[in-house]
Amino acid sequence: MRNIKLTFQYDGSNYSGWQRQKNTSRTIQGIAEFALMQIFKKKISLIGSGRSDIGVHALGQVANFKTASGLALSCLKQGLNSLLPADIKVTKAEFVAADFHARFKAKSKIYRYIINQKHYSVFLRNFVYFLPQPLQISAMQRAAQHLLGEHDFRSFQAAGSNIRAKAEKSSIRTIKRIKVYKVQSFILQLAPFPKKATASKNANFIYIDIEANGFLYRMARNIIGTLIEIGKKRYPPERIRRIIALKNRRFSGPTAPARGLFLMRVKY
Amino acid sequence: MRNIKLTFQYDGSNYSGWQRQKNTSRTIQGIAEFALMQIFKKKISLIGSGRSDIGVHALGQVANFKTASGLALSCLKQGLNSLLPADIKVTKAEFVAADFHARFKAKSKIYRYIINQKHYSVFLRNFVYFLPQPLQISAMQRAAQHLLGEHDFRSFQAAGSNIRAKAEKSSIRTIKRIKVYKVQSFILQLAPFPKKATASKNANFIYIDIEANGFLYRMARNIIGTLIEIGKKRYPPERIRRIIALKNRRFSGPTAPARGLFLMRVKY
Repeated sequence: MRNIKLTFQYDGSNYSGWQRQKNTSRTIQGIAEFALMQIFKKKISLIGSGRSDIGVHALGQVANFKTASGLALSCLKQGLNSLLPADIKVTKAEFVAADFHARFKAKSKIYRYIINQKHYSVFLRNFVYFLPQPLQISAMQRAAQHLLGEHDFRSFQAAGSNIRAKAEKSSIRTIKRIKVYKVQSFILQLAPFPKKATASKNANFIYIDIEANGFLYRMARNIIGTLIEIGKKRYPPERIRRIIALKNRRFSGPTAPARGLFLMRVKY
Repeated sequence: MRNIKLTFQYDGSNYSGWQRQKNTSRTIQGIAEFALMQIFKKKISLIGSGRSDIGVHALGQVANFKTASGLALSCLKQGLNSLLPADIKVTKAEFVAADFHARFKAKSKIYRYIINQKHYSVFLRNFVYFLPQPLQISAMQRAAQHLLGEHDFRSFQAAGSNIRAKAEKSSIRTIKRIKVYKVQSFILQLAPFPKKATASKNANFIYIDIEANGFLYRMARNIIGTLIEIGKKRYPPERIRRIIALKNRRFSGPTAPARGLFLMRVKY
């Protein structure tokens, strides 16, 4: 059996997230598995690096599956891309070691969130959170520093997620890097955590890049929502420390809209 | 009666072009007029600067209408934007002189075409023409020079357009400016005809900006299609002069896909 790792790019706008669901056919996983079935003429189960919510996008979602087929990787990739719809594409197909597991072997994930601060754009409507209200970026940057490192992030975990809460017994995670910066234009391809942020005074977008060894359910969007509250000066940057300590979802900010969130990369 | 000029931005992907049609409600004009009817409680006819095809986008389409209503412009704009769908927006509402006519008073129009040369992007799929085949940009630039000035552009007018051909008795137009250049990233807001083209060797996109005093039916897309053929070295740049002289659609290149075309600006 060969173990194959696939990297996906998708526009999540028209899907109910990554994970296959019983009553919804419109999930990325469901559609990708259907394409794999057409190629291999048998049911294939993809192991994804993790779920993603309705409307969340990916530049580098990772999944793997095992097959006895000898199909060349280039043919697999080309075949998948001809079967997949225009808003889901495989950017890479690789052989990996037999013990590779897209979820359990993930060392960290990088998410990016994009806030459009200036002009509403019909072309970006599904890819940014349009928030023309001024945000104090320096406060958001100070607050972000308090999130770095190992913490119990229960305050940022979606409250209603019982099934997941059971599965994820620990809510301790490590945020390895976090960067809040201004960007002049909407450039998705910009590598995460750029050394030189192109911060001009009139920058139109705020980017927030977060790398963690794992994300609790809705943790990324709840952290972003809290940073936005701090940017609006609803509470001071240092409040983040108390919010973490309280371990209660009630104290953090609202969940930021899914459309501004991109899974950029999964590291193994 | 007050004469009001509206500037529209729209993602044309989900519409049958600008112009209201009897059997299709999904036109930008139809939807904008429906929103105006809700505001003014009576039928309003918009005069657009011109048609646009299915799937063509606009950053600066212009239309005008007359009304006896005293509604403030800021309220009109806000009201329209709350009624319009997320992929159509009014970016400006202005009073203009009584004789302003969005179509007849247009001095020139600027179109932009974007070709994605490198990596397919699910996020840009409706906004660029993905053409990973190498194009000789210097040949396209030389060819573009031959299009400048006043010519009979019949060779670039859609062949089947009988109704329009009658209305547009003359197929003589003047191309005032045309520029073919490379751009690193997908930046729509980039002002047309930039002085300094950010041409790096590894640029991902080819932009083509064209300003003319008018465009025949499909002229922009047929010119782009011909320039692409020249970029592919199917014929030499100088062939453009012969194509113009032949005044026959058979001799120019195929129509470039609508999704890469943006009406950037209408000048009065």
